[in-house]
Amino acid sequence: MKPFHRLISFNEAKKIIMENTKEMERVEKVNILNAVSRVLAENIVAPFDVPGFKRASMDGYAVMAKDTYNASLQNPKKLKVVGKIFAGEKAKIEIKEGECIQIATGAPLPKNADAVVIVEDTSKEGDYVNIYKPVYPGANVSLPDSDVKKGELILKKGELLTPPKIGVLASLGIEKVKVYEKPKVKIFPTGKEIVKLGEELDYGKIYDINSYTLATLLINEGAKPIINDIVEDDEEAIEEAIGRAIDADYIIFSGGSSIGEKDLLAKVIKKKGELLFHGIAVKPGKPTICGKIDSTLIFGMPGYPTSCLTNAYVLLLPSIKKMARLPFEIKKVKAKLAQNILSTIGRYQIYPVKVENGIAYPVFKESGAITSLSKANGYIEIPAEVEYLEEGMEVIVTLF
Amino acid sequence: MKPFHRLISFNEAKKIIMENTKEMERVEKVNILNAVSRVLAENIVAPFDVPGFKRASMDGYAVMAKDTYNASLQNPKKLKVVGKIFAGEKAKIEIKEGECIQIATGAPLPKNADAVVIVEDTSKEGDYVNIYKPVYPGANVSLPDSDVKKGELILKKGELLTPPKIGVLASLGIEKVKVYEKPKVKIFPTGKEIVKLGEELDYGKIYDINSYTLATLLINEGAKPIINDIVEDDEEAIEEAIGRAIDADYIIFSGGSSIGEKDLLAKVIKKKGELLFHGIAVKPGKPTICGKIDSTLIFGMPGYPTSCLTNAYVLLLPSIKKMARLPFEIKKVKAKLAQNILSTIGRYQIYPVKVENGIAYPVFKESGAITSLSKANGYIEIPAEVEYLEEGMEVIVTLF
Repeated sequence: MKPFHRLISFNEAKKIIMENTKEMERVEKVNILNAVSRVLAENIVAPFDVPGFKRASMDGYAVMAKDTYNASLQNPKKLKVVGKIFAGEKAKIEIKEGECIQIATGAPLPKNADAVVIVEDTSKEGDYVNIYKPVYPGANVSLPDSDVKKGELILKKGELLTPPKIGVLASLGIEKVKVYEKPKVKIFPTGKEIVKLGEELDYGKIYDINSYTLATLLINEGAKPIINDIVEDDEEAIEEAIGRAIDADYIIFSGGSSIGEKDLLAKVIKKKGELLFHGIAVKPGKPTICGKIDSTLIFGMPGYPTSCLTNAYVLLLPSIKKMARLPFEIKKVKAKLAQNILSTIGRYQIYPVKVENGIAYPVFKESGAITSLSKANGYIEIPAEVEYLEEGMEVIVTLF
Repeated sequence: MKPFHRLISFNEAKKIIMENTKEMERVEKVNILNAVSRVLAENIVAPFDVPGFKRASMDGYAVMAKDTYNASLQNPKKLKVVGKIFAGEKAKIEIKEGECIQIATGAPLPKNADAVVIVEDTSKEGDYVNIYKPVYPGANVSLPDSDVKKGELILKKGELLTPPKIGVLASLGIEKVKVYEKPKVKIFPTGKEIVKLGEELDYGKIYDINSYTLATLLINEGAKPIINDIVEDDEEAIEEAIGRAIDADYIIFSGGSSIGEKDLLAKVIKKKGELLFHGIAVKPGKPTICGKIDSTLIFGMPGYPTSCLTNAYVLLLPSIKKMARLPFEIKKVKAKLAQNILSTIGRYQIYPVKVENGIAYPVFKESGAITSLSKANGYIEIPAEVEYLEEGMEVIVTLF
């Protein structure tokens, strides 16, 4: 129960975490339906042209363009219709001068045809069709490589797979694709006061909140969390838990609100690897620990639900996004502060607010309260040297 | 192969779709880890207070506040330390006047104590502790209902479950929660030119793209898509497919590029239910069909990949979001147009662009090309009466 010493600044903590975060190298092959919102781990070079054949891009008549050059509304050109071709059909017939073939969008152009006159510019007359407008060669025709060119580097390693990019893969007949694995995060609740969901809540105990807020945040943001059993507040148990979870990319201890086990965690980290920092001058979230054992990042998160989750938003998330190679978009909006806020000099403060119609309402109850965050949709940052924010002033809100 | 008649406007189409979209009523019970980003389908009334007991909100000494009133740095108050209490422990001892108990954050306050002096304002001296600052009753103490009050309506039906809200559920020991079901969408690829992934691609054929772009868009946006086998281009097959899928909330036909099957679909819809519209004055996406059979919305999407997906973004998505009861945030940014765009008078145009550093680059190749959309991160809307957009002009881009 010692107080913290040598707190580092919030920005230093962020920097240290990011410097120690490596981009994911492990890949897995998944079906393209499961690849959406994942990051491509291979270059995709088109194995063939798409669509792969010359096709009509409109419904109409496949013609030799030169047959239409003199056509006008007053003097339509009359062409003989020698067949019909639908999409998906092979052109079994060809056209000769003065002839045309009725053609549907997407159907392959018959031999000798080099243009399509759209149906709106024609009128049928028995076995003939009147052409009212001239077309140039290539009009209303898609070339074989008009969408994708064979040999083209069509999707690059590191690209985020959006629905249209999944469409590009489908167009090339690719069913499975290599993506980077999601960062694996093992969460260990700690603290004697923490009770697992489903168990009886005795006096002096509280349910495990942080495992669930952390896990669902991580699920939402592209990581793969695993919640483990509660770890006893002793060195051996912590060491054993780390040993068991060292294959993960991140190990997060959270839940205990005493700083007792935080010292234990720091001790184990020092013994097994490198303690990167212990304590940040940020409110809430002072007791945050970060270390590295082998290539696994170890976090000791503050036990209080709001502290734990805000720290996860501001410190853990940028690291997860970097490792996952996912874009990290920080959305900021300007808002007017609904009421005065008193801050603590010397500590950078992350203050949850609810923004509605351009007004930022402080929703902070206390670090222990999960309900404060559940009403917030963002936070404001109050620098260490600021003591007081005034009602009505403009603040910048980072949205969750 | 008839042209379209009586096209309705883009805004009319949107209005008709939204009017015919009902909010989801079916619910399912899921584990809270799977409930994130889902919509709560029940009111949650707190069954007990959280934390449920009076606890220390800081590390320090549990005291009777009145014992500290005269304390100062110059004249500290000396109190006898009669015990230690950690979080998760029951207070077995009580304090009397002149006594205190060392207490950890989160630990229940011992009997007779009404405040906590933080450890930083004390110094230990054998069995005694020097108190340097007075505290008021309640200082550094969280009340039993400080986070959640028993009987409080803590989460409301219809709320989107964010990670902190999942935390609120966890704090109440709730493991499973009722959420609204995801809209079920059955997708039927159509068209003789369409080949299933994994099969040989003959001349004149293309792989099924739209099933994959639609399905992955729907997965991302909170619906539950099911891709079915390719449906033959005949009335009976379409009717049979609809009959098989009528338990879905949406049935989407897409893939065929001829308008032939669209007439068949319209015919089947008219026979079995209500045709809401057939053809929209929008580019791309003119051949879009919408109808309703029983309570199922039926869409006939244009076959061309870009047309299909843009129409899904602008017409289907708002409907899906409404049914799913999910917020639909339309993100718009201003950008300068990188080059001139020629549009078609009389048709509302949805034009894909890539916005980078405030510049909107047109990426449109042709409606048939999926690669145009894969490079876009948004679109601009060009009203029916506008023919020409000039390089450098400011446009409003709706981001995907």
